Amino acid sequence: MNRSRVVYVVSDSVGETAEFVVRAAASQFDHGHFDIRRISYVDHVEAIEEIVAAAAEVAGFIAYTLILPALREAMREAAARANVRAVDIMGPMMTAFEDVFNAMPALRPGLIHQLDDDYFRRVEAIEFAVKYDDGRDSRGLARADVVLIGVSRTSKTPLSMYLAHRRLRVANVPLVPEVQPPEELFALPHGRVIGLTIRSEELNEIRQERLRALGLTDSASYASHARILEELRFADDVMRRVGCPVIDVSKLAVEETASKVMTLLEWPKSRAIPYS
Amino acid sequence: MNRSRVVYVVSDSVGETAEFVVRAAASQFDHGHFDIRRISYVDHVEAIEEIVAAAAEVAGFIAYTLILPALREAMREAAARANVRAVDIMGPMMTAFEDVFNAMPALRPGLIHQLDDDYFRRVEAIEFAVKYDDGRDSRGLARADVVLIGVSRTSKTPLSMYLAHRRLRVANVPLVPEVQPPEELFALPHGRVIGLTIRSEELNEIRQERLRALGLTDSASYASHARILEELRFADDVMRRVGCPVIDVSKLAVEETASKVMTLLEWPKSRAIPYS
Repeated sequence: MNRSRVVYVVSDSVGETAEFVVRAAASQFDHGHFDIRRISYVDHVEAIEEIVAAAAEVAGFIAYTLILPALREAMREAAARANVRAVDIMGPMMTAFEDVFNAMPALRPGLIHQLDDDYFRRVEAIEFAVKYDDGRDSRGLARADVVLIGVSRTSKTPLSMYLAHRRLRVANVPLVPEVQPPEELFALPHGRVIGLTIRSEELNEIRQERLRALGLTDSASYASHARILEELRFADDVMRRVGCPVIDVSKLAVEETASKVMTLLEWPKSRAIPYS
Repeated sequence: MNRSRVVYVVSDSVGETAEFVVRAAASQFDHGHFDIRRISYVDHVEAIEEIVAAAAEVAGFIAYTLILPALREAMREAAARANVRAVDIMGPMMTAFEDVFNAMPALRPGLIHQLDDDYFRRVEAIEFAVKYDDGRDSRGLARADVVLIGVSRTSKTPLSMYLAHRRLRVANVPLVPEVQPPEELFALPHGRVIGLTIRSEELNEIRQERLRALGLTDSASYASHARILEELRFADDVMRRVGCPVIDVSKLAVEETASKVMTLLEWPKSRAIPYS
């Protein structure tokens, strides 16, 4: 980055939501190279004034999620006085809920982090995904909402974790020609298993990269290419026998693959309605 | 919920950011009980018109992250015509980046999901956390950015996963009186280890809950309470020997504990500046 361009992210709770939006917007500019400074648990007007002064000093701007009306008002006023841009992320959304549904906000910062049933379901899903990662224990298959299968390096682990955050209980099983996949896999109800595949060139590239990272040369490259084709053929065969849908993860980020998985599972039915 | 109150979440990419903001706002109203329908990869004007018509039909509203100006414009116009509220989540933030930093947006939907170095660091961190969860392999300790220690049920696993999403390489080690903690733990540089503790009453409650979930009675409750005190004493002692900071996770959600961890680690220095 040429010079420091600072965005202050301010919240009366953790400030995750605000930072998420700022990073999404920042990714559209200069590869997201900005100095993003998150300030959590801001709960009094003096703090807001200090932050506005700091933003003015560096000619940056502020993005905020403040739930308490008094803090929002203080931010608007202080920013206007100091001529600092301040983007209100939650305000317009809160107003929409109030106006459209005639609802009254609880106005308690951090409510999204409540330790409620939904929270414990998420924690349980994460623990489940870790426990049943990489075919560690095939007893998990019958209890999973979805079982991911595929050769090594098809993003099974990060995808499982991502889906766990969406409260899905996920198990994943690696497919390797030398190891017979667990019997349980073939007994699962239709639609419970999803296969992940990847183009051989891409897989080759990823594995070469890994070899180089380990300080090895790619002298075994032809052999490794033949090996990759064998693995993919084996995986194809297992997926056909299971009769599962298959997602090609080549060039897909985990979030994008997850979106496809949730569509296939229609999980939850009311949420994932991709248009195309 | 009394009647169906629908929020359409519309994006020309996956739509994660938009859904995140909507859920954060929704949590302030009626415990977040709304029918949130995410529509991903919207890429033409006709799709937008259909969604606006659907939202009008159910008297709901729309929240959108559209990167392409033509789609944003189409949304604004269609919503105004149909008298449907439509909240633009990314627009004001994009404009702030343009105006304040004089930057030009790339205008490519999904840029945040780019498979760049940052993405691969995140995937690697997640794989690392799964591999070195629950003291599975103490060789990971020396390579970790942070090592979490604590008794069972102090959220070590979900916390590790959460921090992994923030690109931290995390290992965690359970503390149990019967098992000597790995020697490596005591050789780590100062500041690398963080202890997690919890109030005994809270831990007791969590474990009783778990017993009930397993269909067992709590007849062993006094014994279990003595056991809990023993475990906590043992953990305290290990933490003192390691000389690590300790976070009390009682009543904290994982996101809140994570915020404290990042502050302790000053990771990354420019981001985590909690105010209080």
